[in-house]
Formats: sequence, C-alpha cells, structure tokens
Amino acid sequence: MDLGLLVADEAVTAAAVFTQNLLVGAHVPVCRRHLRRSGGHVRAVLVNSRNANCATGQQGIDDAVACCTEVAKRLDCPVEQVLMVSTGVIGAMLPRERIVGHLDALLATASADGGPAFAAAIMTTDTRSKAVHAVADGATVTGFAKGSGMIHPDMATMLAFVLTDRGFPDVEAGQAALRRIADRSMHRVTVDGDTSPNDTMLMLHGGRIARSPATLEATVTEVARGLAREIAADGEGASRLVTVEVTGAPSEADAARVGRVVATSPLVKTAIAGRDPNWGRILSAAGRADVAFDSERARVWVGDSEVYRHGEPLPDREPAASAHLREHAEVRIGIDLGAGEHAVEVWTCDLTADYVRINADYRT
Amino acid sequence: MDLGLLVADEAVTAAAVFTQNLLVGAHVPVCRRHLRRSGGHVRAVLVNSRNANCATGQQGIDDAVACCTEVAKRLDCPVEQVLMVSTGVIGAMLPRERIVGHLDALLATASADGGPAFAAAIMTTDTRSKAVHAVADGATVTGFAKGSGMIHPDMATMLAFVLTDRGFPDVEAGQAALRRIADRSMHRVTVDGDTSPNDTMLMLHGGRIARSPATLEATVTEVARGLAREIAADGEGASRLVTVEVTGAPSEADAARVGRVVATSPLVKTAIAGRDPNWGRILSAAGRADVAFDSERARVWVGDSEVYRHGEPLPDREPAASAHLREHAEVRIGIDLGAGEHAVEVWTCDLTADYVRINADYRT
Repeated sequence: MDLGLLVADEAVTAAAVFTQNLLVGAHVPVCRRHLRRSGGHVRAVLVNSRNANCATGQQGIDDAVACCTEVAKRLDCPVEQVLMVSTGVIGAMLPRERIVGHLDALLATASADGGPAFAAAIMTTDTRSKAVHAVADGATVTGFAKGSGMIHPDMATMLAFVLTDRGFPDVEAGQAALRRIADRSMHRVTVDGDTSPNDTMLMLHGGRIARSPATLEATVTEVARGLAREIAADGEGASRLVTVEVTGAPSEADAARVGRVVATSPLVKTAIAGRDPNWGRILSAAGRADVAFDSERARVWVGDSEVYRHGEPLPDREPAASAHLREHAEVRIGIDLGAGEHAVEVWTCDLTADYVRINADYRT
Repeated sequence: MDLGLLVADEAVTAAAVFTQNLLVGAHVPVCRRHLRRSGGHVRAVLVNSRNANCATGQQGIDDAVACCTEVAKRLDCPVEQVLMVSTGVIGAMLPRERIVGHLDALLATASADGGPAFAAAIMTTDTRSKAVHAVADGATVTGFAKGSGMIHPDMATMLAFVLTDRGFPDVEAGQAALRRIADRSMHRVTVDGDTSPNDTMLMLHGGRIARSPATLEATVTEVARGLAREIAADGEGASRLVTVEVTGAPSEADAARVGRVVATSPLVKTAIAGRDPNWGRILSAAGRADVAFDSERARVWVGDSEVYRHGEPLPDREPAASAHLREHAEVRIGIDLGAGEHAVEVWTCDLTADYVRINADYRT
C-alpha cells in the first residue's frame, strides 16, 4: 500500500515542476536528468510514500536510479523513460531491496482501473485519497495528489500527477502550460506555510494533440484546482476547508499574495477553528502582504455576511457569520481591497489542536 | 490593571519604531504627529491594554488625542509631549471616559518604584510581566515589554519601552540607534508569524549625554534582547523557550533570514513540542529561506548534540538531543550553513495545542 506505479502503453510526453526548496529529495535531480535525456518522454512513474529519500546523499541518488533501472528492464524501455518520486520521512535510506521485490506484483496488477489503488498508495498523513476526473473537448483528464502537511504555495507543490489522453503540441508547450496550471492550482493552497523538499507536480499528456490546447489547459487547470481543494480539505488536523476570496486587487499576483498571507496566518486559522468571524485578524493579515490598499475602502465577509465595510465593523452581521463557520464543512472568508479589478481564490484549512498533535508525534 | 503611565520629571528625548503593517492602530499616526511637533520630546506615555483602538476610524484618532490632552492638562505640558500606545482587541471603540476617569489615580501613585506595576498593566495574553534592567558606564537602562501572540520580526515589534537616564547626542542619533537595537532584539523574535497593527517600540533617553553612545547602545541592545527572550518564553501556549542559532552564513542579514524561517516553521515548532530532535525539518525550513548553502556542507545540532553533519544523519546522537528537549525549559537548536562567517541567534517558542486553544477562544 505504500508503492504506486503509473505505466503508459507507449512513451508519452511529460511536464514537471519541482520544489523551490534548496534541500531536495534524491528523486528531484534524477527526474530532471531522465527528463532531459529522454527529451521529456516517459513510460512509467514509480511512486513511494513513507520515505522521502531526502538528505541521503549519493547513495539516495543511486537507489532511485536503481529502482528506475529495474522498472525499465521489466518494461523493456530506456531507463531515462522511467521516473521515481518519493515522499515521507526525511533522512532515512530508501528500502531499495523491498521496493524492487514488489515490482513484479505491481506490474502484474497494473490496469486502466487502477487509479483508486494508486491514489491510496501515495498517501502519508492524508486521511483520504485524492483523485479528480474531467472530460472536455475529446480529452479525458485524471489527476491524483497526496498532501496534508508541509503544504505551502510558491514552491512547486506536494505530489500531484495529472494524466490526459490528448497532448499539448510539444514538450515545451506542455511545460509552459503546466507552469500556468500550477500557478492557478497548487500554488494557491496552503496548510501550514512549510514546504517540502520533495514537492513535485507531473503532467503526462499523450495520444493525439488536442484540437484546442487552451481548452485542454483549462480542463487540466480545473482538475488540478480540484486536487488543491482536496489537499486543503484534508490538511493535517483540519475541521474546515476554507476558501479565501480576495477581490479588488491591483493585479492577479497581488490578489494571490494577499490570499496566501491570509490563508497562512495562524491567527486567522485558529479563529476559524473557534468559529469566530474575526475580521480584525483577516484585515491585519492582509495588511502585511506588501500590497497597497486603504483599510477605509476595504470590505471583509464571512460566508454571505459582510462583517466590516469601509472602516466600520458590522457587529449585527457576526451571528450569521458565526453560524456559517459552525454549520458548514466548507467555509468562505473574503476581503475586497477596493484597489483594483483582480480576484483570486486561495484554499486552506483551519488550525486545530489536532495539527499540533499530529506533528508533535509524527516524524517527517 | 489595564492602564499604565510613564512620566518624566521633565521632557526627555524619544525614539520610536512602529509596525510595518498597512493596518495601524490609531495611536501610531497620533504618536508620529506628536513626536514631529515636539521635536522628539516626551513628558509622558499613557498605555492601555485590552483595546487596540484599531480599525476605529477618525473617532479612534480623536479618542487617542483626547486622552493625551487630559494627561497634558494634568502635567501642565504641551499635548504633543504626551504619547498614547494601545494594545488589545481590534475594532472596538476606546473607552475614553473610563480611561480619563482613572488618570488622577494613576498620577497620584506614580513613583520611581512603579516599574513592576507598569509592566503588569500592559499585559494582554501574557502570563507574566516583562522587565529587564541594566547598569553600565554610568547609565541605568530599564526596559518593559508586552507580547505573547501576533509576534513576528521585521515589522517593528510588539510593545516595548526602554528608558535610560543617559542620552544619545540628539534625536536623530537616538532614532538611528533604536533602529539598530530593534534589528538585533525585537526583530529576532517570533511566536506565530503574525504581526500586530499596533507594534511599537519606544526609547526614552534623558539626562546627560552618555560618555560613550556606543556603550549606551550596547547596553540598551542587551536590555532589549532580554525583553525579546522573555516575549518568546511567554509565547502563547509555549512550553519551551527556543534559541535558534545560525552560523556559517554569508552575511548577518542572511543568518537572520534563515533563523527567522526556522523559528517560524510550524513543523519545527511542533517537533520541539513533541521533544523530537527533527533535524530534517530544521534543514528543510532553512532550505526555503532564499539563502544559498549546500546541505552536504551543513551541520544541525540540538542542545550540544550534533544530529546531522555534511549530508549524514547521526542517529546515535538523537537520544541525547531528545533528552535536552525534554529536560530543559530553555532549549537550543542550531544550523551551520558552511557558507560564511556570520552568526545570529533568533528566539521563539514551541507550538503546542494550547496556542490553538488560546487563539480559538480569545478575540484579538
């Protein structure tokens, strides 16, 4: 249950974004090298959880390559068409023998219906598996992700895999599309502000080139946004999925910056755990995002209730706002900066005592 | 118990640094205006806790000025020589009548021995009052601070007051010294990564000009660092005061940046709550601080035990490292980047379930 394998009948085109953390798992340089040598073509992706193969030196890199080699032998393809992606505990050596020992069984059970088993295999502290599916304009798009803690935007991301049976025109077009897709999906989710050295998002796109690459990109974006929301909903210790809505920003990047700071604020997240529509903490977090706005022109809402407007608290609306936080598993908080026309959504979860318990007891 | 007053026998020179948050409490523009008009001279500082007078519009500014005016009347000094500083709940109107009603009693009990009462009066979620005292080179330096949550460096800081009976040569020299002092004290402490719209650090320096302004600055810096450590030790829900030691950085600013990221990481802070010498989380947090270093040349320690060295985990040392975390209320974690000669200390606390409880239940 802690080993998954994606196999294509023939090599497909791949795009990838990796963590921006200076400390990287061994799989990151191995993936980069294999993608470079294969010209972005991939036959299989082996994924293991419970061991990040990170801070393991040259031995870690050799272990990852050895696992890829064993998969390649069995598929009769060049080693550089096989990728390996790891997640789990930092600083322990990869149990290479045990992994190789399971490869035949994995390949024997590989099937087009194996998605749920794959999604389950890559979980660590996740409490549920994450898969999203969409069909549009002749393309079928399926996404899988794992992630629950060490989740923060602007690094690449947790582990996410998006597969589509229609292709972008070429490797470069796919890579450019994936960067935009990650910016609007995985880069808009945060659980705790911590980033992982193993964050990886991989897109495999194969078969005929899509009639409309723009439509394909939009469909993949929707799948990836669905995965991002599932990650936030399953954030470590979370009792609420929180959508942070930012409107009235000077640019989309500014809106995203404000959304990320609000979504990362421990004070905003503990207030939601306490079902407190605490607009002061929302406004104060927005105020430290390096985006210029006038708090006298701003508005803050929780659910459908505006609780602060143009310098005035609206205490009459707080009971309805509290009720929204109490009664729904998916809640919305928002701020209009009154400083432009741009808007984004960012996803996070509340910060509960269970988050502390999970991370005080679990070694990542 | 929620109102304090500092009074000088005659006007003294003042230096101040305020929050960088875009949202500011009403006292911030009022202090700035009074300091400008008085040429940096101050007779009295009125401090209230439990109400931040923030997001209260023009009424909030009028309320703060009215309180200053009432103090000035009683001291027979110009209103611009009186400052007011507020901390507490955002978005509630200042109880101006109640505050003014207590001024006569406050002035009647003012004395040179009133420090402990002042330190107690300015507490909010603090569990103990914070005062630090030093004497050097003919100068007596006394500092007071409050702060427990909404604590993060690189904004000005929580509330801190430093008083000395020897002066810097002039207003500008005092202001420049205070900026350097804040950089090396209050800007090196973090509890939760959240900043307050009311953060204020104020230094009153009076009497004769110090023989050596450099020595005076060093003494004030030590007092301010003592206050910063007390704030971290009393961080909301804290069970451990954590000193993060960063060495081998290319510059002092780089060292401070790495220290702040490590000290803010929820994963590092929950690991300490779990008494887990989790060097992987420390190294991973350092890796996202935008400071270039090679993890193969880095070292990580907990207490006196090196747990990671040059790419190799040292699991034999972990029991001693765990014992350090279990057995001491003040613990040390450190990282040597192997990338230069600069070092700093940053102070924080562990992240416990009590932090969540306090902030889910308390409205700031």
